[in-house]
Amino acid sequence: MIGRITMKVSDQIAKVSGVPPISPAELSRYIDHTLLKADAGAPDIDRLCEEAKQYHFFSVCVNGANVIQCAGNLQGSDVKVCSVAGFPLGAMAVKAKAYEAALAIEDGAREIDMVMNIGAMKAGNFKLVEEDMAAIRKVCSSGVLLKVIIETCLLTTEEIIRSCEIAKTCGLDFVKTSTGFSTAGAAPEHIALMRKTVGPVMGVKAAGGVRSFQDAVNMINAGATRLGTSGGINIIRGQTVKGY
Amino acid sequence: MIGRITMKVSDQIAKVSGVPPISPAELSRYIDHTLLKADAGAPDIDRLCEEAKQYHFFSVCVNGANVIQCAGNLQGSDVKVCSVAGFPLGAMAVKAKAYEAALAIEDGAREIDMVMNIGAMKAGNFKLVEEDMAAIRKVCSSGVLLKVIIETCLLTTEEIIRSCEIAKTCGLDFVKTSTGFSTAGAAPEHIALMRKTVGPVMGVKAAGGVRSFQDAVNMINAGATRLGTSGGINIIRGQTVKGY
Repeated sequence: MIGRITMKVSDQIAKVSGVPPISPAELSRYIDHTLLKADAGAPDIDRLCEEAKQYHFFSVCVNGANVIQCAGNLQGSDVKVCSVAGFPLGAMAVKAKAYEAALAIEDGAREIDMVMNIGAMKAGNFKLVEEDMAAIRKVCSSGVLLKVIIETCLLTTEEIIRSCEIAKTCGLDFVKTSTGFSTAGAAPEHIALMRKTVGPVMGVKAAGGVRSFQDAVNMINAGATRLGTSGGINIIRGQTVKGY
Repeated sequence: MIGRITMKVSDQIAKVSGVPPISPAELSRYIDHTLLKADAGAPDIDRLCEEAKQYHFFSVCVNGANVIQCAGNLQGSDVKVCSVAGFPLGAMAVKAKAYEAALAIEDGAREIDMVMNIGAMKAGNFKLVEEDMAAIRKVCSSGVLLKVIIETCLLTTEEIIRSCEIAKTCGLDFVKTSTGFSTAGAAPEHIALMRKTVGPVMGVKAAGGVRSFQDAVNMINAGATRLGTSGGINIIRGQTVKGY
């Protein structure tokens, strides 16, 4: 469904240059409604789920401790539960990251946003980067979608390309720009590079730095098929937001 | 050993007010030489271990993916390997956090710095906070020391006290102020409050915000028995450092 919307929006953008051609309702279905802050408690998570149902966001994106609560809250709705693995540093041992993902799936997550082993990428240990992604891919069984956060703000252009290539090799579903906990978030030029590298089929998720309706349109225009933001409500209302 | 040093230093501080009475060599044994950045690669970790051996720091504190490397590098030295669980958000599912700790121990860690479920504390779910700490305590078998990071910058005074009380109830070895990845690091007044709450036997670790020899002495004076910093070398040389 997202694929069809994307094509439609891309076509419209191509035809009506300079005018955001996507409706708020369409934009909602791009958004992973995100709350990953350390101090988010159960009432905050309940609110997140209610908002996601009301605005028909694609998913809620939460930490592992909150997955069971979200799965309960969102049962029977059109909102999926997305959780994270090795978040936000990506420097967890392979087996621990894989176990965390497997447990989140057992608890009800249907999408996993894992963080790449960024230190291994920086040190040129591509074998470990691949082993890490492949291990999480293995625990994401049928119907569970896997994204890898490569943390573009810490990578060179070559490292962004290499990360995307490894993700594609490992059969991941999405590459994602940012955790929102590092030095910067998504930039349209990184989205374009990631889209160019992975080709037309894989997903590309922009996260961090999506702060307005126009930001969102720019990211989609550059090749994003999913947006991660904590400010989805304000964004679809046309208001600019701060933070993640 | 740390206990004895602490007593000695405290006595000295009591006698020689205003003059830092601790030697650089003594201070080294308080320090967990820390590298938890997402982009730290194998060469950075090798350097960390070499420095720790040279300066006789108490431990190296690293992410789970780096524990095997550190355990190999530090075999036969006086430097322990400390690793983290649920770092830095603390919002991992209980079982995933416990598995991460168990795996780090299997890989060679002899100290675990877990992050408390901060969201549960903020929401008043003390039962979950305790269940989380107790689960990690259970996997930290004989000889493995367990610290809990409560992230003081996100807590009220009452929440700091309650967190320390739960840590004591669960039989943890240390309470620790900060991850170094949130809004602020250790403050002497928080150290004093934590020391007062846990009593004289448990350890108190100051992390984040220890940037100079005087900072270190102030933390020890306030009740700290361990210091987490990435700037240990500059600190014991009497230079002021930036960051964690």
